[in-house]
Amino acid sequence: MAEPYQFDQDVAVTATEDGRWRGTMTDRWNVGPTPNGGYQVAIALAALRQIVRHPDPLAVSAHFMARAEPGPVEVEAAIERSGRRHSTASARLVQSGERRLHVAATFGDLSVPTGPTLTAGVPPVLPRVEGCFPQVGHPLLPEIMRRFDLRLTAGSLVWATGKPRGVGEMAGWIRFADDREPDAAALILFADALPPAVFNLAGMRAAPTVQLTVHVRSRPSPGWLRCRFVTRHVTDGYLEEDGEIWDAAGKLVALSRQLRRLQ
Amino acid sequence: MAEPYQFDQDVAVTATEDGRWRGTMTDRWNVGPTPNGGYQVAIALAALRQIVRHPDPLAVSAHFMARAEPGPVEVEAAIERSGRRHSTASARLVQSGERRLHVAATFGDLSVPTGPTLTAGVPPVLPRVEGCFPQVGHPLLPEIMRRFDLRLTAGSLVWATGKPRGVGEMAGWIRFADDREPDAAALILFADALPPAVFNLAGMRAAPTVQLTVHVRSRPSPGWLRCRFVTRHVTDGYLEEDGEIWDAAGKLVALSRQLRRLQ
Repeated sequence: MAEPYQFDQDVAVTATEDGRWRGTMTDRWNVGPTPNGGYQVAIALAALRQIVRHPDPLAVSAHFMARAEPGPVEVEAAIERSGRRHSTASARLVQSGERRLHVAATFGDLSVPTGPTLTAGVPPVLPRVEGCFPQVGHPLLPEIMRRFDLRLTAGSLVWATGKPRGVGEMAGWIRFADDREPDAAALILFADALPPAVFNLAGMRAAPTVQLTVHVRSRPSPGWLRCRFVTRHVTDGYLEEDGEIWDAAGKLVALSRQLRRLQ
Repeated sequence: MAEPYQFDQDVAVTATEDGRWRGTMTDRWNVGPTPNGGYQVAIALAALRQIVRHPDPLAVSAHFMARAEPGPVEVEAAIERSGRRHSTASARLVQSGERRLHVAATFGDLSVPTGPTLTAGVPPVLPRVEGCFPQVGHPLLPEIMRRFDLRLTAGSLVWATGKPRGVGEMAGWIRFADDREPDAAALILFADALPPAVFNLAGMRAAPTVQLTVHVRSRPSPGWLRCRFVTRHVTDGYLEEDGEIWDAAGKLVALSRQLRRLQ
């Protein structure tokens, strides 16, 4: 049976006889000629979740080693350790015989609270969805943006206006364009789905991801996700991008951090 | 020739004939009965830096899979990919035949700036070293604290006073007690060297690390390091601890984030 939603179809992998997994990296999640990093990680996780016994990715770290390209992809996936509360596993994405991405992930079960909620902080203050700006109709619209309903704040439109605000921030509301509801696996994609926050500081320059870590805190409720990504320190070409994702129920669902290199 | 400093001695590993590395996890970096997590990662990096051709760990991600213990340790270390600008490698720490820690790291060369410095932010505002408090003479002093000269701010003494401030912050100045100067490898240890910031929110409770990511931005200048660690969101027992480390010259040298589980 075909998966009904684009995301699930495009991350699907099939076990091969030599103990690997095979899939296709489509161009539907491209930024320019290159598949989005969060999409690449989601493919690795699609293989890992078939071998671990815990359902939710709690902590995912991805090291980007070489530029990926649309086309066939193989995943080498292995359990590192399977414990009572957590499982840890690692994966490599291989294209044309070349390793391009390394992912390690700790899985757990977010349906079983394992401790107290002492402070959840507060979600970023954004205008309501209706007060933000859909990303449609622009001649330079990256292909990946067609997969989302993304409503950016007025201060986050630099990718379309070319006018950086001088503040390394990018914020807005996001969901899948085909109404697929968010889940823990999709949060890894959403953590890398907005245009880089550094665009708002340095203008539009390539800023490929070197490393991405996502911590998933909760399974998101259906509906819009509220996101904010911030870059504070750009030193010798390297910069961090710290993200928060909150769900429609007002819960923190993920924190992300990536290391980018400004070109 | 013996290494002159305790840290270098205690992370040293030797290649074995079966392509692994062997070392001893000493109890000199213990917190209670358990070797500190940053120290464990530093042992993995000591093996990795013998196989990669770039000198500096730029992005290190560690997934803690089982409690380590003082004693013999084996490291399985492998190159994932060697590129022009970066090398990526992975390592596992094995004790008693059991995998306990998985580390992936991207290495580069921080002596070669690869891009602009656009904003470096500002270091956290702390009292001068002389206005902070050395951690000595306390009957419960964790063994690892004897390896550092650690001067905590007045608001960060919860581990000794038992009185949380109600703010998830821990800050102070740190250097090695034996005057070894900091370098990129040691920053991984310093990123996990202060008492957990969550103590200042929830009191003294075990809060083991599930995952730790450190991004090294610069080789530190000699002298004191200025550190601040903050926990904002404690949800269902999981929490983040975000760290900044700045060097004596006022440069940002590392950002860290860990996922802890409150017990």
